[in-house]
Amino acid sequence: MGVELYNDGKHVCIAFYDLVDDEQSHTVQSNQFIIVDNGRGAIVDPGGNLTYNGLRMGMQKFCFTDNVDLLLASHADPDIIASLNKWLIGSKAKVMISQIWSRFVPHFTNGRDLEDRIIGIPDAGAVIPLGNSNIKAIPAHFLHSEGNFQFYDPVSKILFSGDMGASLVDNALAARPVEDFKAHLPSMEGFHRRYMVSNKVCRLWVNMVRSMDVESIVPQHGRAFKGRAMVNQFLDWIEKLECGVDIMTQDNYRVPNS
Amino acid sequence: MGVELYNDGKHVCIAFYDLVDDEQSHTVQSNQFIIVDNGRGAIVDPGGNLTYNGLRMGMQKFCFTDNVDLLLASHADPDIIASLNKWLIGSKAKVMISQIWSRFVPHFTNGRDLEDRIIGIPDAGAVIPLGNSNIKAIPAHFLHSEGNFQFYDPVSKILFSGDMGASLVDNALAARPVEDFKAHLPSMEGFHRRYMVSNKVCRLWVNMVRSMDVESIVPQHGRAFKGRAMVNQFLDWIEKLECGVDIMTQDNYRVPNS
Repeated sequence: MGVELYNDGKHVCIAFYDLVDDEQSHTVQSNQFIIVDNGRGAIVDPGGNLTYNGLRMGMQKFCFTDNVDLLLASHADPDIIASLNKWLIGSKAKVMISQIWSRFVPHFTNGRDLEDRIIGIPDAGAVIPLGNSNIKAIPAHFLHSEGNFQFYDPVSKILFSGDMGASLVDNALAARPVEDFKAHLPSMEGFHRRYMVSNKVCRLWVNMVRSMDVESIVPQHGRAFKGRAMVNQFLDWIEKLECGVDIMTQDNYRVPNS
Repeated sequence: MGVELYNDGKHVCIAFYDLVDDEQSHTVQSNQFIIVDNGRGAIVDPGGNLTYNGLRMGMQKFCFTDNVDLLLASHADPDIIASLNKWLIGSKAKVMISQIWSRFVPHFTNGRDLEDRIIGIPDAGAVIPLGNSNIKAIPAHFLHSEGNFQFYDPVSKILFSGDMGASLVDNALAARPVEDFKAHLPSMEGFHRRYMVSNKVCRLWVNMVRSMDVESIVPQHGRAFKGRAMVNQFLDWIEKLECGVDIMTQDNYRVPNS
């Protein structure tokens, strides 16, 4: 079911939290988003094959498929964009993804030459027209993927942050923004320590985000951080986190014997 | 066409270099491998939808689909394993992939509960029985993916290294092992600097590989490093390479204005 994150009559942001079957506990919950401006739509991190049918049906209330111009992919993981072949066949939308992945995503497809439907985003990011508005592709390289973008909507002031800020919770909880930051930490600390690549790039990213006008950070798994105070609590935490290669030692690189 | 890397009559390693259409210059070339021991087969990095039909047909000369026990995936990128749904439907094989990706790969599939077909490899690696032999899953985390394994075959002494050692060349050149290391560098230097995560983890990985009995390093893109002298040239180079987060600065994390 689509949940409104923002709606001023002309510009709408919708989240889908419940499209992955909760009964399958071995599959990670994931969120999908659509942004519609003056009737033209973008899907942010459309997800894999598990969410394609639900998203396609669920979004028609807010935007018909023919009006979807863009698929905005933070990176190339299966829960982000494994539905790509279906969307390329089933819509006229173009996909935008880091240029370091644009030669890899054709491997999702069945071989028809789709070069004109795949647009690489340069490492510096991009300003992407949508309807009468602009969405910004914000660099978040190595957080976690090597070529990684977040999508900032200056109208709603939402930063769709991909895996940054992700938490591992069930569908029902994913729909509720974080209320108590400390109580929320156990659902995201392990994920960020293992999947985010290093404290150095966390700090560079935080410096950039502090310069932006961000009302909400909305990740692709789990709960959102809504309001300046909660956003700042997240930034204060992640800029101090040791993670990824920071905590790897020779013990992590040994030949297994059994 | 399958090319023999090793064959002693009971144990066979085959490479496929030419299954991605070379005419599509915007799609990255990729290699697929099968290991067959006493009639039982494993596919290493089977690839995406582009290579599924060619690999399935091409491998029958060496191993029937019904005898494939394992799909060994170095990580979860589309060129590695986007064909997963087809292989799970079209064979009885189980997929083995880092446990940090095992909850993500169901997003490649269409929702049927396949929990018993997806096996997570713990961060420390694993010894994996195949026929009468054992394949070792060797830790290569952050090289490039956060949860990343290489597959070492102690019979052929080949290290199937995933993206480590990858070069960006065409199908014909991919089939020819590196002859002149310095002349080969331009086809792999840019890739390793941008996709490999940090010099620290390169060094930890090199220390481990130097302790192993490796005759060839065979990557998933481009040309192989064959023979101890050439393997050592690669190790000497990669352990000194600054890459990934080492070379990121605040300039890489700025809000784009245009």
